[in-house]
Amino acid sequence: MKQIPYKIYLSEDEIPHYWYNVRTEMKEDIAPLLHPETKKPITLSDLEPIFCHELAKQEMNATDAYIEIPEEVRNFYKMYRPSPLVRAYCLEKALGTPAHIYYKYEGGNTSGSHKLNSAIAQAYYAKEQGIKALTTETGAGQWGTALAMACGYFGIDLKVFMVKCSCEQKPFRRGVIETYGASVTPSPSMETAVGRKINEMYPGNTGSLGTAISEAVEVATTTPNTRYALGSVMNQVLLHQTIIGLEAGKAFEKIGEYPDIIIGCAGGGSNLGGLMAPFISDKLNGRRNPYFIAVEPSSCPSMTRGKFAYDFCDTGHVTPLAKMYSLGNGYIPSSSHAGGLRYHGMNSVLSQLYHDGTLDEARSVKQTEVFEAATYFAKVEGILPAPESSHAIRVAIDEALKCKETGEEKVILFGLTGTGYFDMTAYMNYNAGKMEDYVPTDEELQKGIATMPKMD
Amino acid sequence: MKQIPYKIYLSEDEIPHYWYNVRTEMKEDIAPLLHPETKKPITLSDLEPIFCHELAKQEMNATDAYIEIPEEVRNFYKMYRPSPLVRAYCLEKALGTPAHIYYKYEGGNTSGSHKLNSAIAQAYYAKEQGIKALTTETGAGQWGTALAMACGYFGIDLKVFMVKCSCEQKPFRRGVIETYGASVTPSPSMETAVGRKINEMYPGNTGSLGTAISEAVEVATTTPNTRYALGSVMNQVLLHQTIIGLEAGKAFEKIGEYPDIIIGCAGGGSNLGGLMAPFISDKLNGRRNPYFIAVEPSSCPSMTRGKFAYDFCDTGHVTPLAKMYSLGNGYIPSSSHAGGLRYHGMNSVLSQLYHDGTLDEARSVKQTEVFEAATYFAKVEGILPAPESSHAIRVAIDEALKCKETGEEKVILFGLTGTGYFDMTAYMNYNAGKMEDYVPTDEELQKGIATMPKMD
Repeated sequence: MKQIPYKIYLSEDEIPHYWYNVRTEMKEDIAPLLHPETKKPITLSDLEPIFCHELAKQEMNATDAYIEIPEEVRNFYKMYRPSPLVRAYCLEKALGTPAHIYYKYEGGNTSGSHKLNSAIAQAYYAKEQGIKALTTETGAGQWGTALAMACGYFGIDLKVFMVKCSCEQKPFRRGVIETYGASVTPSPSMETAVGRKINEMYPGNTGSLGTAISEAVEVATTTPNTRYALGSVMNQVLLHQTIIGLEAGKAFEKIGEYPDIIIGCAGGGSNLGGLMAPFISDKLNGRRNPYFIAVEPSSCPSMTRGKFAYDFCDTGHVTPLAKMYSLGNGYIPSSSHAGGLRYHGMNSVLSQLYHDGTLDEARSVKQTEVFEAATYFAKVEGILPAPESSHAIRVAIDEALKCKETGEEKVILFGLTGTGYFDMTAYMNYNAGKMEDYVPTDEELQKGIATMPKMD
Repeated sequence: MKQIPYKIYLSEDEIPHYWYNVRTEMKEDIAPLLHPETKKPITLSDLEPIFCHELAKQEMNATDAYIEIPEEVRNFYKMYRPSPLVRAYCLEKALGTPAHIYYKYEGGNTSGSHKLNSAIAQAYYAKEQGIKALTTETGAGQWGTALAMACGYFGIDLKVFMVKCSCEQKPFRRGVIETYGASVTPSPSMETAVGRKINEMYPGNTGSLGTAISEAVEVATTTPNTRYALGSVMNQVLLHQTIIGLEAGKAFEKIGEYPDIIIGCAGGGSNLGGLMAPFISDKLNGRRNPYFIAVEPSSCPSMTRGKFAYDFCDTGHVTPLAKMYSLGNGYIPSSSHAGGLRYHGMNSVLSQLYHDGTLDEARSVKQTEVFEAATYFAKVEGILPAPESSHAIRVAIDEALKCKETGEEKVILFGLTGTGYFDMTAYMNYNAGKMEDYVPTDEELQKGIATMPKMD
């Protein structure tokens, strides 16, 4: 039998022509988004001042299982996709595990992460609609970089609200975003009503994703011919990211394997959902029965310790409410927390799937354990992973070590969403033994959860 | 006819099993390396205290056209190779050129450049010989990162002398090197006789590649069971880098094209030689007649304005003398010069090929022109290139624009050696309009050339 190669590549012709909408097959559909003021289910026309028309439609779409990927988006995909499905032979050998470990590697593009998959789609729909400018927020910087690349490609202006502490810690992320022609504004800024209010209430605060979202939405909705773009959490983003799982599924078909365990890191859910969705379809339809694990940081444990209820998607309460696992829109993870995965909530679709038990397990891990896995992985597999992705690596290693004990030849798939080039401060802290773990107490979590709206 | 894909991948089975030694086919062989004290041709036993046995043999090898790539090295290659040959459709479209532009992309691994191709080979031979530690130098940091990865993989200790100014400007490069388990010493240091001498002669100096080489060689030759590794300039490095050109040649065969013009950036020559060597063989054997262009920075113009003569490879005069194009071992490029390509000399093989006229042309370009091309390329092709690689991009664009004028459908190949993630300071200077060009005067060059040894 022919040995499975280290990297399984599809041909460019095999790039999927459709994204997959898992929502159409769920046991129970998600609860509708609610208008932030009326608390009534939102309509398409409520969303259109915020998002481009096609994206608003995708956000609401509960009926079409497959949505065509526009040709221009597919052509852009061809510059960096299909991404490889990698057989981690060296990791298996180093661990001495009988498990077959695979990862879908999304870090091989200049944005350094999977975020580009949705960024290019969102920029495309903006261009098609004749939108002149987009606004967005970025925390760790992956999304801001990706959207800057996409907007640079289609000639759309972009204003990025970058969480202030990240802006200061990652000047080079800012440099890349500006090299692609976008402007960067540290958030909270004095340019928006929301930003001024937050700055007044909490002088000297270093910002949060929730506030940056509020600022970006405010500018988008008050500037002519401008829309807002979001890099995670929304259904439209999860939809675009299904390219990851669809490609992975095809690659597994080619080599005649199928994953027993599928592991993804969990922030807003875009990578997690994108990787898992097609496999979730297999499970919902009884074709296969993979075991799904969402991995989140112990310092921002929305699925493992949050509440499944309606919450605002932002701190300023200008966005719709979504029913999701949430730590409360006022929750801000400890400043010792490195990298992304710091959003208070979780995409509604994934929240519902977890609530239903289709997504089998959420697991939280401490960041020193994560960086231990990251450094180990970097040495044996030759890729320096993003802190976010390293959450999945941690659990993949743990599962592979269980197989070593039991002797099981399980097939493990995890998402390697990005590279750690812009996270060296965190790595250097870890190398110097200065990294701290943070697990919020129940009281601390309650404070966050208390910021969730009381619904009638 | 089937459209040529954006990215032409070979299968892992097609990774070459042999490196190609262009020296065996040259019109005239290179002049021998000379012992730094006796000035007599060196012998294998002169080299062995510096380099591992197999590498010393490769350095001297003038007879074997093909040298087998060890299986463990090929297996490591499979983690990130074959690298794609990319058809730059978007660049062609943006330029409106009838030319077919291709680039061989070597930046898709964590070291971010082609340097890993030789690093893993050098670390392998060290491991095979039972060497405990390696020393090396790094300027811009690509080589130090690559060798740290390779040594981390094989469990070899590594001490990197990093040019002091680079160490300060690029703390994150240092962070990556240390994450892979290597130690970093800013050069000139007080740990070596050479370093102390340079620090005494030039207090407060910020270092040079030539000095860092001297320090690394001193430590290697005075520490038990330790050897030195070099990332460019040497024939052994050029040999390992032929994997680039060999893969490119196979990929062109697959799509039925052949390059009319081959462009590489020129520092010490490792990428340039590695990309060109197999095509040079075609030319020397009359099979094809591609036109070769070496591109160097105007601030370090060894081929265009240097002298073809014997010179030391380092500032401290502890390494052998090589006959090469050189600006003098005492030449230090302006501190306004960004990125690598700051070595005073050029690999002997390439120097001889250029002297013979086989390598057709050397062209020097100013760095603002280079960053203009880099930024343009980043937007249209979606890859943020290293400053080094962008020298080749500049000339590839210039040649493609000539084709636009003449209507010629020339096939252009250039080497995209790496990514610019760790060069954001330079990009940000360029974005802010603060980047300066530097072209040394003839008098300034004469000062450097005066440091070359007087040979009898």
